[in-house]
Amino acid sequence: MDTSNERSVFYISDGTAITAEVLGHAVLSQFPVGTNSVTLPFVENVQRAQAVKAQINALYQQSGVRPLVFISIVTQEIRDIILQSEGFCQDIVQSLVAPLQQELGIAPAPVANRTHGLTANNLGKYDARIAAIDYTLAHDDGISLRGLEDAQIILLGVSRCGKTPTSLYLAMQFGIRAANYPFIADDMDNLKLPAALKAFQHKLFGLTIDPERLAAIRQERAENTRYASMRQCRLEVGEVEALFRTHQIRYLNSTNYSVEEIATRILDIVGLNRRMF
Amino acid sequence: MDTSNERSVFYISDGTAITAEVLGHAVLSQFPVGTNSVTLPFVENVQRAQAVKAQINALYQQSGVRPLVFISIVTQEIRDIILQSEGFCQDIVQSLVAPLQQELGIAPAPVANRTHGLTANNLGKYDARIAAIDYTLAHDDGISLRGLEDAQIILLGVSRCGKTPTSLYLAMQFGIRAANYPFIADDMDNLKLPAALKAFQHKLFGLTIDPERLAAIRQERAENTRYASMRQCRLEVGEVEALFRTHQIRYLNSTNYSVEEIATRILDIVGLNRRMF
Repeated sequence: MDTSNERSVFYISDGTAITAEVLGHAVLSQFPVGTNSVTLPFVENVQRAQAVKAQINALYQQSGVRPLVFISIVTQEIRDIILQSEGFCQDIVQSLVAPLQQELGIAPAPVANRTHGLTANNLGKYDARIAAIDYTLAHDDGISLRGLEDAQIILLGVSRCGKTPTSLYLAMQFGIRAANYPFIADDMDNLKLPAALKAFQHKLFGLTIDPERLAAIRQERAENTRYASMRQCRLEVGEVEALFRTHQIRYLNSTNYSVEEIATRILDIVGLNRRMF
Repeated sequence: MDTSNERSVFYISDGTAITAEVLGHAVLSQFPVGTNSVTLPFVENVQRAQAVKAQINALYQQSGVRPLVFISIVTQEIRDIILQSEGFCQDIVQSLVAPLQQELGIAPAPVANRTHGLTANNLGKYDARIAAIDYTLAHDDGISLRGLEDAQIILLGVSRCGKTPTSLYLAMQFGIRAANYPFIADDMDNLKLPAALKAFQHKLFGLTIDPERLAAIRQERAENTRYASMRQCRLEVGEVEALFRTHQIRYLNSTNYSVEEIATRILDIVGLNRRMF
């Protein structure tokens, strides 16, 4: 990362600014440039917009370099104030509204903060999402093997291979009810498929991980234990992969993937629909 | 929602397609149009791209209406195949690359799937995010009052006001170590601030909720109980708000907000930095 190219970046929205962050981050990741970013959500009135404009201009005066400004603002009056700043402004949502309006042949009916907001229209879907999070927490780490008939997916794997963050992400981002079950290290005879899981064979999905990465992760938590030793990690990973193959359980190696990638690859492989919130 | 205007929408990416979904969803939420969406992540090779193009074209042939196609594809060869489909294609990332290249004065160095991928550069930050999720789970619902010195925020509130989903979202999306502590209903004398929390007064943040909404949420879980009664909900909410005011704890009413809004509003109010993953 060449920090001589470091740029200040603003993500500004009249809502949560999550859309501006996600897209701005995606675009900037295409450039070999360091960034120093500030997110300003809920810029909902003229007064706050003017303060933000002053902040952008002050930074420009001070540094002599135009800040990059990614905005997602529905209200034109607010948007125009930011667009008049000295920043290099990209209006990420509005730039797509005009072409879409032409294609759809209908006028936009903008409502501020509808993307990540709660409305009467999406309340039922939102409640289902919260229910998915509740379900996933109640079925994390093999806590409960009851109610697995309600799971949409059951993740299997050894301790610290990524089951819990993946399950939570599936619930939070996509509203999926995801249970997960750990294979316990101490007694390798435990690496059998419990009868309670066998009944749901079609929902099972395995996670595996390179033993080196697993040992590094475990060392962080339990340094110099057998649990974190290379030998133990190699043994467990070998056993669990053999178990996946024996029972014809589809599986994925999580080593080089973020939680977003693991979650979306699993849904892609098993063919589960993604819901959007 | 006017379903006569229902349109088919594709979100297509050589990565997770999360960026395409988030932005496409934001733009479409500006129009009064129903949508029927399909997300196709990991379109990473020519063969899959051609299959996707055929899928778009088939849908167009069948319906006579052009599908809307939001793409985020780094590799030009793959991108061009989709752009040649019969869909109404919007390249959400690429459309911003050219203006940014001019502003930055440096060429893009695109790497497929860098936005939500794991790289040597972000591995440390990624591990910190997983650590935040671990921390948050270990400090959910008052499970442990130890280690609160490591919390970045401690959410307080009555049962089912949104503490757990908000804490998990803060950890998952922003890498924030968020503890939460419930005020238990049965014994209203419990609505005191425990000494263990008082020590971290500056990290405390309250959540409240309208009694009507709280009762509706509780009814879903425990129908016709005292716990879910309007009387009990009104009593608890009144008490907890009084407690927040007595101890000068900042608080937010979560009733009309999604988990994204609650989380981002809290960070905005307390001035905690958002990290991006």
